Amino acid sequence: MEPRILELRREIDRINRELLTLLSERARIASEIGRIQTERGLGHYDPAREEEMLAYLAAENPGPFPDGTVKKLFKEIFKATLALEEQEDKQKFLF
Amino acid sequence: MEPRILELRREIDRINRELLTLLSERARIASEIGRIQTERGLGHYDPAREEEMLAYLAAENPGPFPDGTVKKLFKEIFKATLALEEQEDKQKFLF
Repeated sequence: MEPRILELRREIDRINRELLTLLSERARIASEIGRIQTERGLGHYDPAREEEMLAYLAAENPGPFPDGTVKKLFKEIFKATLALEEQEDKQKFLF
Repeated sequence: MEPRILELRREIDRINRELLTLLSERARIASEIGRIQTERGLGHYDPAREEEMLAYLAAENPGPFPDGTVKKLFKEIFKATLALEEQEDKQKFLF
């Protein structure tokens, strides 16, 4: 294996760890929002809020991913977050 | 809007910005790997390397996302990265 590729892959590994930490922190905060929404009888899905986040991210996107790719990746994060909040509601009603 | 939700949403906005920065940094590094692979006549898709990254991330996952969700999110990142490398190869051959 090319030494330069190995070095760059170590950088990718570091970024993967940081991404995992941030995604997990984001999921904990979203869970807390989800608990408050459930207590207040509010739904979790808020398309206007999602559109606002996507527009901001596309505007701030430095590349090299195209804006459409950035939006797609964040939509996957939003979908995973909503599934987590709904799962936590189910657990709340089970116990 | 509940003040606590607004406060938590500001935290989410901060994390979104950090995620965008890291995803963009990761894409730049992957592009550099892609260029070296193309120069050496190597392919970009390396399923063994992807499996290694996914196994590591699942092992290090602190929650609250289930391991399957973490893997799904990273697979989307890998797919976007491969598409970027292939797009950059095409541009190389066009100009």
